[in-house]
Amino acid sequence: MKLNIIPVKWTDEGVSMLDQRLLPTEEKWLTLRTYNEVAAGIKDMVVRGAPAIGVSAAYGVALAAKTFVGTNVDDLEEELDFASDVLAKTRPTAVNLFWALDRMKRTFQKAKSEGKSVSEIKQILLDDAKAIHDEDIESQRLIAQFGGELLDDNSTVLTHCNAGALATGGVWGTALGVIRGAVDQGKKVSVIADETRPYLQGARLTAWELMEDDIPVTLITDNMSGHIMKKGGVHAVVVGSDRIAANGDVANKIGTYMVAVLAHRHGIPFYVAAPLSTVDLNCPTGEDIPIEERDEREVTHIKENQLAPLGVGVSNYAFDVTPNDLVTAIITEKGVAKAPYTETLKAQFAS
Amino acid sequence: MKLNIIPVKWTDEGVSMLDQRLLPTEEKWLTLRTYNEVAAGIKDMVVRGAPAIGVSAAYGVALAAKTFVGTNVDDLEEELDFASDVLAKTRPTAVNLFWALDRMKRTFQKAKSEGKSVSEIKQILLDDAKAIHDEDIESQRLIAQFGGELLDDNSTVLTHCNAGALATGGVWGTALGVIRGAVDQGKKVSVIADETRPYLQGARLTAWELMEDDIPVTLITDNMSGHIMKKGGVHAVVVGSDRIAANGDVANKIGTYMVAVLAHRHGIPFYVAAPLSTVDLNCPTGEDIPIEERDEREVTHIKENQLAPLGVGVSNYAFDVTPNDLVTAIITEKGVAKAPYTETLKAQFAS
Repeated sequence: MKLNIIPVKWTDEGVSMLDQRLLPTEEKWLTLRTYNEVAAGIKDMVVRGAPAIGVSAAYGVALAAKTFVGTNVDDLEEELDFASDVLAKTRPTAVNLFWALDRMKRTFQKAKSEGKSVSEIKQILLDDAKAIHDEDIESQRLIAQFGGELLDDNSTVLTHCNAGALATGGVWGTALGVIRGAVDQGKKVSVIADETRPYLQGARLTAWELMEDDIPVTLITDNMSGHIMKKGGVHAVVVGSDRIAANGDVANKIGTYMVAVLAHRHGIPFYVAAPLSTVDLNCPTGEDIPIEERDEREVTHIKENQLAPLGVGVSNYAFDVTPNDLVTAIITEKGVAKAPYTETLKAQFAS
Repeated sequence: MKLNIIPVKWTDEGVSMLDQRLLPTEEKWLTLRTYNEVAAGIKDMVVRGAPAIGVSAAYGVALAAKTFVGTNVDDLEEELDFASDVLAKTRPTAVNLFWALDRMKRTFQKAKSEGKSVSEIKQILLDDAKAIHDEDIESQRLIAQFGGELLDDNSTVLTHCNAGALATGGVWGTALGVIRGAVDQGKKVSVIADETRPYLQGARLTAWELMEDDIPVTLITDNMSGHIMKKGGVHAVVVGSDRIAANGDVANKIGTYMVAVLAHRHGIPFYVAAPLSTVDLNCPTGEDIPIEERDEREVTHIKENQLAPLGVGVSNYAFDVTPNDLVTAIITEKGVAKAPYTETLKAQFAS
């Protein structure tokens, strides 16, 4: 394993992002110089994946501070609130976005209450955004370690969407972190990657990441996992999450629920890997998680290729919710939580 | 409803096929002048769908007879056996292919035993291929009538792949026949069509057919049906089949099993619509049905668009098997069969 994929970086020119829309055929880095450009990057899915969106949003706030030209702290606060609103409106489901914006706001308020100057606050916000990024990578490392222990040697693991280094601050990833953790522990693990329509994060990103790290991967369409489970070809499922409710209901990429139902039918463990920043104790259950719907064209076209008759009605839900009874365990940087999640997740926050 | 889609036709020049690879963006008819061209058309999916493959194969045998230049009946028999082998090797799962070839062989043998001449046999074989086609359309009409009665007024029906007029001899279709039957009976029915990766029969063909007949259709990706069922948005599932075992296990397009498991979890009836020519009493269970695997490129590319890293491993199973306990009923031209299928299907053959 190279363990060297970091999809979002702070540079002197601004936030540098690997354009995930172009992978795997092109590896192009974009430099985003304003918070508006970062917001557009999140909305247009230059970067995606809950932890990566959180890191990017924190850098977006740091960039809003950096590009602020005044010297008045109240004016800076107004500017940051505005920037935060713009960033918050990009994607509704991933809670890490709101978590990161909240943390940056609290960091600002603490600095303000301590009488820091505008230039001092700019540095404090940048330092905290970098800390969020570093902590995210460290969280994935711990998730990899805890989760890796759950996988057997010589096992085949199915994953849906991309919950890899590309979906996080980098290096390990959440679901792919668990797989990398097992490999790091000396186990032989093969991966089955659902392609994950309509955006093909599995085909484009998960396959690419795993090949970069020399982990064997087999690509399938989303409708094949049931057949392969029935044949006995899957020993565990590991996915990431965009938001976990207090009761352990898991919002994740559309199709995750189907995989969970099938894993349950076949007695295959279904693991969710996510940092605690993905757990939203303010959401009692999955019913309270907003589900983003995206543009119809993602379903009807691939690039310029028209796949369906013009004018056909389309539903394009980006996420679904897997109820907690289908979740074998939730792996965070604090360890492995099992049911009853209302207690075990809360305990992880307190630990 | 126009009820005017017939994807395979006999003409003086040969077998005329609507090229389903090009739909919905182009409506192009090909004329296939030899049985080899018909075999290639089946293999390359110019035509697809179990009943349509059966009709096409019958016409392929008629074409082999038509293009035979000798006058010796034994030579004709040799030529037809060879043609039949070529046609049989195109697609392994759909049993209608073998059923139609068997019937044409029996028709030949009967004519031969009656001392018919080569030119008489040519006509007899063409007449029987046309009869297979006519009977197929009549079967779909009866399936539409029986199945339509199972659907409620103002209901939403999910279907997977294309089991429509395009997949059969034409006009009604099997699964879409049931939907058209309900509409014909004055019911209001909306359809949710899974796009059906990798070949996109749902997006390209089902959406197109239903729009042609003014039946409301909403297209989704294959991984969305669970979410929509969970929201209460599906009242029944209707699919076709490529082969039904004697015990009622159903081979159908990859992904059907997933839909059946989800329908079962949500208490939604799961109906299979197919002519008796799809029922294979020689297959005791679904375990005995061969599952075709197709080219990796269907998964990794859409036309010239590369969707995944070059060199990635791929599985491309074209079909899966839904066990009989997930099947609410099987609708054939003889009526509605329910469990125990070993008895009810056998009884339909006898009736």
